[in-house]
Amino acid sequence: MTERFGFTLKATDGKARTGVIHTPRGEIRTPAFMPVGTAATVKAMLPGSVRETGADILLGNTYHLMLRPGAERIARLGGLHRFMNWERPILTDSGGFQVMSLASLRKLTEEGVRFSSHIDGSKHMLSPERSMEIQKLLGSDIVMCFDECPALPATDEVVAKSMRLSMRWAQRSRDAFGDRPGHALFGIMQGGVTRDLREESAKALVEIGFDGYAVGGLAVGEGQEAMFDVLDYAPGFLPEDKPRYLMGVGKPDDIVGAVERGIDMMDCVLPSRSGRTGQAWTRRGQVNLRNARHQDDPRPLDEDCTCPACRGYSRAYLHHVLRAQEIIASMLLTWHNLHYYQELMQGLRDAIAEGRLAAFVAGFHAQRAGGDIGPL
Amino acid sequence: MTERFGFTLKATDGKARTGVIHTPRGEIRTPAFMPVGTAATVKAMLPGSVRETGADILLGNTYHLMLRPGAERIARLGGLHRFMNWERPILTDSGGFQVMSLASLRKLTEEGVRFSSHIDGSKHMLSPERSMEIQKLLGSDIVMCFDECPALPATDEVVAKSMRLSMRWAQRSRDAFGDRPGHALFGIMQGGVTRDLREESAKALVEIGFDGYAVGGLAVGEGQEAMFDVLDYAPGFLPEDKPRYLMGVGKPDDIVGAVERGIDMMDCVLPSRSGRTGQAWTRRGQVNLRNARHQDDPRPLDEDCTCPACRGYSRAYLHHVLRAQEIIASMLLTWHNLHYYQELMQGLRDAIAEGRLAAFVAGFHAQRAGGDIGPL
Repeated sequence: MTERFGFTLKATDGKARTGVIHTPRGEIRTPAFMPVGTAATVKAMLPGSVRETGADILLGNTYHLMLRPGAERIARLGGLHRFMNWERPILTDSGGFQVMSLASLRKLTEEGVRFSSHIDGSKHMLSPERSMEIQKLLGSDIVMCFDECPALPATDEVVAKSMRLSMRWAQRSRDAFGDRPGHALFGIMQGGVTRDLREESAKALVEIGFDGYAVGGLAVGEGQEAMFDVLDYAPGFLPEDKPRYLMGVGKPDDIVGAVERGIDMMDCVLPSRSGRTGQAWTRRGQVNLRNARHQDDPRPLDEDCTCPACRGYSRAYLHHVLRAQEIIASMLLTWHNLHYYQELMQGLRDAIAEGRLAAFVAGFHAQRAGGDIGPL
Repeated sequence: MTERFGFTLKATDGKARTGVIHTPRGEIRTPAFMPVGTAATVKAMLPGSVRETGADILLGNTYHLMLRPGAERIARLGGLHRFMNWERPILTDSGGFQVMSLASLRKLTEEGVRFSSHIDGSKHMLSPERSMEIQKLLGSDIVMCFDECPALPATDEVVAKSMRLSMRWAQRSRDAFGDRPGHALFGIMQGGVTRDLREESAKALVEIGFDGYAVGGLAVGEGQEAMFDVLDYAPGFLPEDKPRYLMGVGKPDDIVGAVERGIDMMDCVLPSRSGRTGQAWTRRGQVNLRNARHQDDPRPLDEDCTCPACRGYSRAYLHHVLRAQEIIASMLLTWHNLHYYQELMQGLRDAIAEGRLAAFVAGFHAQRAGGDIGPL
């Protein structure tokens, strides 16, 4: 294993890329999907099982961890990796997005954001400097700049003002991060759905210089079409030799479209969250296992899937444990969904490496159009 | 594997026994602790993990399964083993106890019990004949007689009347069960805490003839002392060459005391249920991981335990995920508790086989008296 952070681009197919991110804690094959471990756990999964699905890296949420159990406490206990028993790479977000969506009594200033915890009402401050400090205390391998992003739709004026604040915060994040060999700092491009603002943001970030670049401010309600419009040009504003991370995305077809447009990393709560509510993602599309049509169905969720849910259980069983609100329902469906997501990523990586992405994507859409295998 | 049900007594130490129950689905080492898989799942555990803790057999609840997803449905889906992905032996209770504790609008007659489901209010009937039919539909390896048991304390008259009804039901259960090679039917001794009634019940059962005998009607609020008083004589009323099963027991010290008194099998929801509420059972006694004294404790729950919770996590982490109500808390603590219980059973089996049970039991109590390893 390398002692420094780095990115090797191995192959491209159109705009799509495949490669490897090197970190002292292991390699991350790209395009990579990062399961979300909000509160130091990927919900309903043991870390060994998350790894078995094929995940090379997890995402941790700075906002949640700073509130409970606290970043200083995690540092005293040896850092987030040891705390949550995951020795491979961890990327932490900056807390900025979650403060704006979860905390109460928020006050945004040039300095940062003051807010009250959604858990116990306690008062806290997040700034570029404090976010860097927290992410260092956690021991994060890939640290994200502290940024701010307005909900869309918003006027260009609002988006531009917010983006420029985020760029000043990016510089402060870079300064506060300092030099930490083996750890990476990623900048976050903002600018909403406005091309000029995206370009301005990218230039500002590249001038500062980061180990990787995120496309932020998408997947916040603008819809897939608007998101793909931005992704048609935004990755092109970023250096080719650094990883590009699309934050908070997404559904399987979002992921495929983003990879086609040159994205290397993604994260989303969707596979785990929808698993807990009985929504399964499969090659043939989405299946709601709470639906009564599954109650007598002896077939597995997906005959060709090798995850424990599909190898060991019928749709009837999954339906039963969902209806009975048994924990095993969350365990099995989260595992299945994460397995499916990682299998999709492996398929994308292989297709790019072999120069057959277009055929892979056509097959992906054709299988989904065929729909669920249906009732007996 | 044998094709017939049988019991081989291998060694005794005082009244305590160790042996093997043979079934077509595998051997059950006795004394055995059976984790409870009420609704076709040991809550928060995958079946492979339950097996890893050392369990040879699970218990399924007829009452829950007949209501949801339904015994006929499970039969159509290939039986309970396939349904829940557990290929080893399963013992099912008769539904009698749970009807009396969970169902509403109960009407008890000589025929059986009419009741309304606690889930949806639907009306059902359980009788010896229907209980045998349901347990056959489930594919249970060890079937329990349909019985009735009054809450203690109760007058001798009430206990005797109830016990004699259960004995008539035992005969009807035996008749309805018929001849099913490879499957066992166990009778259930009743009689409360009254020696004469226990003896009368045992004689009635032995006259009918069963593959094993349970001591029923204990662990229903009478306290450990009263329970041990009964266990001082009740197992002696039963044939030596058949397994003896104490239903619904118990805490680790209940289990040790029962094994000392000649019990071969037990079941209890305690290790799984208390795991979900943050109660851990260890060699040194009970630990409540929700307590704030654990929040900075880097030590494992039990340094000498080899379960995933103790190998991978600190007390601080277990405390955190409990407080954050994360599913992994239930997963890890259930696993730990079941692991501890099975390790205790293995310790008891080895000690009996080697004729050193008294020393083992003295060590068990001494370690617990030493108490939890305490705060930092």
